[in-house]
Amino acid sequence: CSCPLPSGDTALSRLVRRLLSARRSLDLCLFSFSCPDLARTVQFLHRRGVRVRLVTDAQYMELYGSQIGRLRHAGIQVRHDQHSGYMHHKFAIVDQRVLITGSLNWTTQAIQSNRENVLVVEDAEYVKAYLDEFERIWEEYNPANYNFFP
Amino acid sequence: CSCPLPSGDTALSRLVRRLLSARRSLDLCLFSFSCPDLARTVQFLHRRGVRVRLVTDAQYMELYGSQIGRLRHAGIQVRHDQHSGYMHHKFAIVDQRVLITGSLNWTTQAIQSNRENVLVVEDAEYVKAYLDEFERIWEEYNPANYNFFP
Repeated sequence: CSCPLPSGDTALSRLVRRLLSARRSLDLCLFSFSCPDLARTVQFLHRRGVRVRLVTDAQYMELYGSQIGRLRHAGIQVRHDQHSGYMHHKFAIVDQRVLITGSLNWTTQAIQSNRENVLVVEDAEYVKAYLDEFERIWEEYNPANYNFFP
Repeated sequence: CSCPLPSGDTALSRLVRRLLSARRSLDLCLFSFSCPDLARTVQFLHRRGVRVRLVTDAQYMELYGSQIGRLRHAGIQVRHDQHSGYMHHKFAIVDQRVLITGSLNWTTQAIQSNRENVLVVEDAEYVKAYLDEFERIWEEYNPANYNFFP
């Protein structure tokens, strides 16, 4: 399958390049995910054998343009909250080593029209705090723990 | 005037404590600001002589519960965008030295109900990138540059 790197040196292409550096794992904790370029990138990594896990928000994953269905269809593991509050994180962790976080939702609107920031951090102390949060959420949103009869 | 520190050791009280450490300046770049505790903190710093500058989003500053009017009324300098895209940053810089950034909008909903992250960074290289962005936005949103007749 072909490489999904967008052309040019843009903030988006730099983000995609960071993601494409993944060799073993990609942990995604994303409030909203509608950007097709980023969905293609995640699918590409999944097909290449990288272990992708994705946590998202139950309300926003059903919005128009959401890529969550497509990623699930591609066989990527997705979990979501069961609360009225938002799962509002927007971070990615590459190979349990590089943290990508900030204000940016992975939406076309955010990338094309908003004023946003994305921080790339390799400091182990920071990365660990976000990894721990990811693992906590991943367990908490395990469908085996859902309450259908509250 | 009395100290606005919320009681207990919560994420909110830790955030307020960081803000209260400001001695000279507080630069705020906030998509949405409706949390009364945080507004009280900012007002307290302003009255204590800290130079407060606040950049916000034109659409969200008019939402129900917004604290922007109250802060302007208190004499705090506020600037906002003039675009259809969002000014979606959510960061604060204390004394040009400590960066506080993350997914957290300064809203009651975010603090009480959402899953959020806040990162406190003192690494000069990171702080400078956000300071530069703040100064760029502060100039760009200078009302003297508004176009009323496009």
